[in-house]
Amino acid sequence: MADQQRAEPDPPSDDRRAERPRPAGTGLRSPQAEHGVQPGTRYVRIQRLQTDKLRRIRKGILRATERADEPEGGLERVIYRAKRFLFGRRLTTEESHHELLPKRKALAVFASDALSSSAYAPEEILLVLMAAGAAGLTYGVPVAAAVVVLLAIVAFSYTQTIRSYPAGGGTYIVTKDNLGTVPSLVAASALLIGYILTVAVSVAAGVAAITSALPWLVEYKVWLAVGCIGLLSVANLRGVSESGTIFSVPTYAFVASVLATLVLAGIRLATGTIEPSLAAEHATQATELVTPFLIARAFTSGCAALTGTEAIADGVPAFKPPAARNAIITLSIMAVILGTLFFGITVMAGQLGLVPIHGGETLISQVARTVWGEGWVYYFVQAATMLILILAANTAFVDFPRVNYFLARDHFMPHYFQFRGDRLAYSTGIGVLAAVAIALVVAFQADVTALIPLYAIGVFIAFTCSQASMVSRWWTRREPGWHTSLPINIVGTITTGSVAIMAAVTKFEQGAWIVLLLVPALVAMMLAIHHHYAAVEAELALGDEAVELPELGEQVVLVPISNINRAALEAVAYAQSISKNVRAVHVADNRESAQAMRDRWQQLGLKAEFLILESPYRSISGPLLAYIDFLDDEDPDLPITVVLPEFVPRHWWEYLLHNQSALRLRTRLYFRPNTVVVSVPYHLNREPTRQPSA
Amino acid sequence: MADQQRAEPDPPSDDRRAERPRPAGTGLRSPQAEHGVQPGTRYVRIQRLQTDKLRRIRKGILRATERADEPEGGLERVIYRAKRFLFGRRLTTEESHHELLPKRKALAVFASDALSSSAYAPEEILLVLMAAGAAGLTYGVPVAAAVVVLLAIVAFSYTQTIRSYPAGGGTYIVTKDNLGTVPSLVAASALLIGYILTVAVSVAAGVAAITSALPWLVEYKVWLAVGCIGLLSVANLRGVSESGTIFSVPTYAFVASVLATLVLAGIRLATGTIEPSLAAEHATQATELVTPFLIARAFTSGCAALTGTEAIADGVPAFKPPAARNAIITLSIMAVILGTLFFGITVMAGQLGLVPIHGGETLISQVARTVWGEGWVYYFVQAATMLILILAANTAFVDFPRVNYFLARDHFMPHYFQFRGDRLAYSTGIGVLAAVAIALVVAFQADVTALIPLYAIGVFIAFTCSQASMVSRWWTRREPGWHTSLPINIVGTITTGSVAIMAAVTKFEQGAWIVLLLVPALVAMMLAIHHHYAAVEAELALGDEAVELPELGEQVVLVPISNINRAALEAVAYAQSISKNVRAVHVADNRESAQAMRDRWQQLGLKAEFLILESPYRSISGPLLAYIDFLDDEDPDLPITVVLPEFVPRHWWEYLLHNQSALRLRTRLYFRPNTVVVSVPYHLNREPTRQPSA
Repeated sequence: MADQQRAEPDPPSDDRRAERPRPAGTGLRSPQAEHGVQPGTRYVRIQRLQTDKLRRIRKGILRATERADEPEGGLERVIYRAKRFLFGRRLTTEESHHELLPKRKALAVFASDALSSSAYAPEEILLVLMAAGAAGLTYGVPVAAAVVVLLAIVAFSYTQTIRSYPAGGGTYIVTKDNLGTVPSLVAASALLIGYILTVAVSVAAGVAAITSALPWLVEYKVWLAVGCIGLLSVANLRGVSESGTIFSVPTYAFVASVLATLVLAGIRLATGTIEPSLAAEHATQATELVTPFLIARAFTSGCAALTGTEAIADGVPAFKPPAARNAIITLSIMAVILGTLFFGITVMAGQLGLVPIHGGETLISQVARTVWGEGWVYYFVQAATMLILILAANTAFVDFPRVNYFLARDHFMPHYFQFRGDRLAYSTGIGVLAAVAIALVVAFQADVTALIPLYAIGVFIAFTCSQASMVSRWWTRREPGWHTSLPINIVGTITTGSVAIMAAVTKFEQGAWIVLLLVPALVAMMLAIHHHYAAVEAELALGDEAVELPELGEQVVLVPISNINRAALEAVAYAQSISKNVRAVHVADNRESAQAMRDRWQQLGLKAEFLILESPYRSISGPLLAYIDFLDDEDPDLPITVVLPEFVPRHWWEYLLHNQSALRLRTRLYFRPNTVVVSVPYHLNREPTRQPSA
Repeated sequence: MADQQRAEPDPPSDDRRAERPRPAGTGLRSPQAEHGVQPGTRYVRIQRLQTDKLRRIRKGILRATERADEPEGGLERVIYRAKRFLFGRRLTTEESHHELLPKRKALAVFASDALSSSAYAPEEILLVLMAAGAAGLTYGVPVAAAVVVLLAIVAFSYTQTIRSYPAGGGTYIVTKDNLGTVPSLVAASALLIGYILTVAVSVAAGVAAITSALPWLVEYKVWLAVGCIGLLSVANLRGVSESGTIFSVPTYAFVASVLATLVLAGIRLATGTIEPSLAAEHATQATELVTPFLIARAFTSGCAALTGTEAIADGVPAFKPPAARNAIITLSIMAVILGTLFFGITVMAGQLGLVPIHGGETLISQVARTVWGEGWVYYFVQAATMLILILAANTAFVDFPRVNYFLARDHFMPHYFQFRGDRLAYSTGIGVLAAVAIALVVAFQADVTALIPLYAIGVFIAFTCSQASMVSRWWTRREPGWHTSLPINIVGTITTGSVAIMAAVTKFEQGAWIVLLLVPALVAMMLAIHHHYAAVEAELALGDEAVELPELGEQVVLVPISNINRAALEAVAYAQSISKNVRAVHVADNRESAQAMRDRWQQLGLKAEFLILESPYRSISGPLLAYIDFLDDEDPDLPITVVLPEFVPRHWWEYLLHNQSALRLRTRLYFRPNTVVVSVPYHLNREPTRQPSA
């Protein structure tokens, strides 16, 4: 029959197979169908293979086509189609590609995260200082200036990283390279936490930009934030191309509109066409004194502005050549723009006498509303702010899965973080990020100010690791220019390290403790995972010499049987095809009915031995395992095979009516060494065979 | 080696096996361990079997001991011990026994359900009538009298059932016997709903008895009710003996204390030592008029008093001989006591001028407090009330699983409702009852009055089915005495049927609609289950002639391999032990690394063919299934065997690091006809083999 098929001009396709009626059951031939099957290796030749699901490349290599994974019908096909609609057609691994970006597009792609933080960082400084009333607010500008200085130091330090790592200086890789495993895991954990908070904070701030313009949406803010994260996950599972064009519009719109707002504010204040509000004087009641601690807290809140500064250093290979030089220029431009926006907003808010309102209208919205009035320009500023914040969250959706990929590749995270989904996205990382970020947003009620204390610390731990790595690198390698570069990175390390400590101390109670607990916990988890994978690999490893597989001899095959019926006999027939030593085992509740069953077994002329295991306590697995233990004692080297007949019913609800004991038995056998479980599925007929009768 | 063991005086026990170190992996012999294993049937003889887990009964029959199910260590053993502590030692099927009860004990066992309803039924009548104010309350005594007349009719009708079914006249069995399948399923569904409500109502009323005495517990009433149901489940999973003694104390204490309360109330009212309260005149404001509909609603609420009346007829075989006569006497006594308590409480509440308070102190508590003052006698009455109500709920815990057992035996419910747990209790039924009753109690906030509208209707549907069955039986069989019995049961049928309809109409909006929807839904479900089981049985059935199992020839065995390591090779070794036609299949993401793997395969000198399936879309199951489809087309009759190496790690969390693709693959293969899945477990070493390194 196989030969006949080979002679046919048109090889079998799925459609043809679908037409041919399948017998019920496993499809084992019934005793009637006796047309001779010769044992042998007739099936090995795949010369003429040409289904539409596989294509022959050369001997021993087949290649699956897109059709191989398309379900042929039923619910699966509906789900498949829904996924294609939502995520787009599947992509082959070869379709993976990267765009090389000119500076203006690179700025948009890599800087949206950093730039967007100017939308909330000034406000967070002032919210802390407000606790000391009007006196506190006077420290706003000096604190902002300090943050700008810090930004300059960090950005300058990162230019060193770009120079040394033209292939991309991601914090995890740089730290691993120079400081070793544990510091790199600390950096990676801090980074992962940072990315999660980037999503939570940016989305919350983006929602705040919307609710500032449309206050009636305030009560839905948690839902809006969750919805944004959901959309971002879908977009990233589709595989957002990091196309500069998509990113350019909101990024430049934000920069331009905020700059214009600041300039117009200056002009209007100078010309006296607007009056400063008196809010700052009236609204704030001092509950604290101006202490160094308060100012330090305000400063560490403002440090949220620096998050994302490292992105350009990570992404050097995406720049057009000369990549390193272009990246450094882009980083400098970004730092200048960010510094200007951040400092400008803080100054102008002060000049306009505006104060932040916790949970209310954002500061940037207040500034824009004051300057532009409530016209379309105001709404444009708000929309641009919202969009760049969403883009910032999107950056984390790209980076978080990538860091997890590196960790998984190095066996510090479960290997499936390496798996690329239908659209080449690292779906596991995307899913985990979305789930944790949603949990955070819900727990903190999409409140930026509540989330900020968790944010800066993780980012600055990562900065510190990265800078310290560069120090170590210059010191050990002494490459050309190390004399000037070393001090720069030493300053960078000390500064970022101090900020990390300052953030830990000043924000400890408001949430930094969570991060301080989480980082070591994640490091311990990653080490445990690595330990496990390493131990397994060592255990499984083979030498290079030739291996001779053992001849295992005839298997002892047990077939647990609860009733003598077609399903049981198909399992026995299968068992007999793999061994001559087959025993049917009936675990019996009742000796009489068991013996009646054995009589029937003999009456049917079945050859396999029929063993009765009486189970006075009605358990099925216990007596069977005890019997397997006994067999095992006879020869511990020979595996024992248990063949389980399993039903595959037509409808989902029918699962509740079958297989309960098989499932339990299989679970217990799984944990028993030396025991192989064979599932012989019995597919119940697709057509009902008779009407029920009572 | 096996022979050596046989020669030993002391056969292998578990302790010895536990000492012997097991090799890691499946326990397949490593290639080094080459000591000759001869294929054959050396393992069949079990002559000298004597482990402490199995005992040889005779040739081909082994009997498991209690030790067979005892886990040898780890978490499983802790759980096992906790279960033994909670539920007691396991019982063998032979230990099942039934006590024969004298009338006084039988009354306690079977009547607690019916008698306990006097604790809430009078109150529920008055709560309905109160809507019409003082004018309404005057109808309390007439309505109660009507309920007592109904009770007399139903009890008298059931004496006929007892006479005809000395082996036990359970409603389901009687209806099936006389009216056929669908009516019996209607009766069974109504019964099951009734039992669930017996638990919910009785427990809620029991908790109300506690909170009446200890009002500070009111806010915990839902928790108390849930706790009671939990305790009842544990007690019934332990297998409460239906020992008359345990039941006698609370039942007789309740009857005696309530009777004493009523008598003393009469005396004190007659002698003028207590004054009637004026609550009835003051408290009630009429919101409705006294209409026939209102009176009918009050009457159907009072009919809750009749629930449980059928219990004695179900339990005839538990009576001491002459069983039928004793059962009839007991039923009559029960009816008289119940009628007296129920009517007495209604009358005395009126005489004392007491009115029920929805959600507040129960009526019985008010009566007792008025009559006895707040001394120990009052608390005794409350405690006895609470206990008899818990006993009533317990009755449902015995009956609900038993009806489910009958239904499962007749293939109308999933077969595992027949399974008897470690203590011979029908654990599935107990679990389902507890879960649904807890859900009800929580949903209805343990409020008796809210639950009552659902209660009577189910019970009266069952009564009607049972009575109609008796009518049919007398008419078709015309046994001696049918002339007098037929009219009795006709009256019973008409009366109970009318009450069922009246309850459906008057309580429709308050909840009866749920029952009216649920009964047909349950009947449909039971028919569908039966249809399925019947179809499967027909499909699987064998004739009586001898069966010749097919010789299946050499299997095509595929071993999906992701890496060449010990686990993979053990799977291949196993595959080669069951077939000569083994192919290792590597689903590859990357052609280069796949070819490197094939080179290594050949370098290791492995004989099985190594096939590369390129998967450009990175799916593992799709290409593999496409290849299986192709093989299947070559010979549709021969099953294809897929051997999956599976890891069994040491710790639970390690499961997250392995087997993800194997699990997915196994699920997809399960649904494919003609495909057998073999799991070769690789047990990871119990000792770590090396420290992690980066």
